[in-house]
Amino acid sequence: MDAWIISIGNEMLIGKVVNTNLSWLGRKLTLLGYRVRAALTVMDECEDIKWAFNTAKQMGASVIISTGGLGPTFDDMTSKCLSEAFNRNWVVNDKALEMVKKKYKEMGLDLTDHRIKMAKMPEGAEPLWNPVGTAPGIMMNLNGTLIFSLPGVPSEMMAIFEESIEPILRKLGPKIEFVEEEILSRGLPESTIAPIIERVMGKHRVYIKSHPQGKELGVPVQKIHIQSSSIDLNEARKELKYAKEDLIRELTQMGAEVEEVKS
Amino acid sequence: MDAWIISIGNEMLIGKVVNTNLSWLGRKLTLLGYRVRAALTVMDECEDIKWAFNTAKQMGASVIISTGGLGPTFDDMTSKCLSEAFNRNWVVNDKALEMVKKKYKEMGLDLTDHRIKMAKMPEGAEPLWNPVGTAPGIMMNLNGTLIFSLPGVPSEMMAIFEESIEPILRKLGPKIEFVEEEILSRGLPESTIAPIIERVMGKHRVYIKSHPQGKELGVPVQKIHIQSSSIDLNEARKELKYAKEDLIRELTQMGAEVEEVKS
Repeated sequence: MDAWIISIGNEMLIGKVVNTNLSWLGRKLTLLGYRVRAALTVMDECEDIKWAFNTAKQMGASVIISTGGLGPTFDDMTSKCLSEAFNRNWVVNDKALEMVKKKYKEMGLDLTDHRIKMAKMPEGAEPLWNPVGTAPGIMMNLNGTLIFSLPGVPSEMMAIFEESIEPILRKLGPKIEFVEEEILSRGLPESTIAPIIERVMGKHRVYIKSHPQGKELGVPVQKIHIQSSSIDLNEARKELKYAKEDLIRELTQMGAEVEEVKS
Repeated sequence: MDAWIISIGNEMLIGKVVNTNLSWLGRKLTLLGYRVRAALTVMDECEDIKWAFNTAKQMGASVIISTGGLGPTFDDMTSKCLSEAFNRNWVVNDKALEMVKKKYKEMGLDLTDHRIKMAKMPEGAEPLWNPVGTAPGIMMNLNGTLIFSLPGVPSEMMAIFEESIEPILRKLGPKIEFVEEEILSRGLPESTIAPIIERVMGKHRVYIKSHPQGKELGVPVQKIHIQSSSIDLNEARKELKYAKEDLIRELTQMGAEVEEVKS
């Protein structure tokens, strides 16, 4: 099953921002068993955004994920252009409006037109809860092609993906074997661990995430979660094993005490 | 004038590599006055590579720059697919062969079929000297659309762009005003300066490059070059001024002694 990723925003094309959303989503989708066929980066222009969605659809994408352009400002136009791309009305979604209302209520703020705009979606779309920011994500099923529209802010994009999209794609996607393990690292701060994790992810087909656990006796503790998947269970286990070995070796060399967590 | 950037390689789509070539080229082209209209990232598959070149051409690109897939291995297929995309024969280019021969002679190595492959190009193409690596870049003029194909290794891509492509695009592109200045920083290593430069580039429409000058009295010296451009000369000067002020302030805060270089 082919996935296409669409990145929306001038900032990536003029070189102000490096598109780390693409590599993060690419790894996630790959581990879920999808083939990331291509990625399109387009400007904040409605014609170009419509072109990108239509192109991905016409090229046979099963899943299209876009990032960027869901905020409250004038140049955030993804939702509107997505509606136009597939001839849907652009309407206030009641569920999305509840989500946006809840967010602003927590902040003690009223709804304004700019804020209500974030609850407008293609007719028939499903809003996705944003655990981190305000703008909900958008899910649309277009004759079997699933379209997900996410904010461009990495923390919001990742949170919506992990909470709402990953479970759906895991269920719908190709049958793949999925393995995961956890280790505990004591003695190194997360910032020291970050480049090690990046190196290990560069070498193996795995996804690794660190979760700071605070301190024990003044020493920082990180729980590190490693996932791997493949159509072949042995393949997935092998990738996980080698990645874990590399990770433990590098962490130990940097002075950490590492413990494997049995589940 | 519209520029399109094509990035070729599975590693970006499966999330192994973050595409910094795109942001680097995007900034360069923007400063040269081109509008970077869109970027396409495709797999190492001939159909997809051909699709990318044809799409950019059909969408009206004046300049197309591709990165990746020019090396000696089986999955390096950009040159061949570029030929197929525009119905040119794929032939050994004599000038390119001289370049490749020279490179291997310097290394004391003979030409092999795999190495000769790097001298094969679309008929009528012009090879571009690679000051850093072996594979020459490729330049093609297709009824007014300029196509440049570069290696994916960032140092090679940048070297070919700066040496061969930038002068051509500056001459052909929109008439823009270009300003540049240099400062000398004493006391900080290049690795400390790198994130400062990144931050300042993120805030202003400039291109900044540091050139290590060795040490003076045990203290590392960097020459830092700042460029800005705009259709409006005052605009370019303003961006340069603010970027320079930010840069000097940050460098000074980190303990550097900064001197402006009069030219």
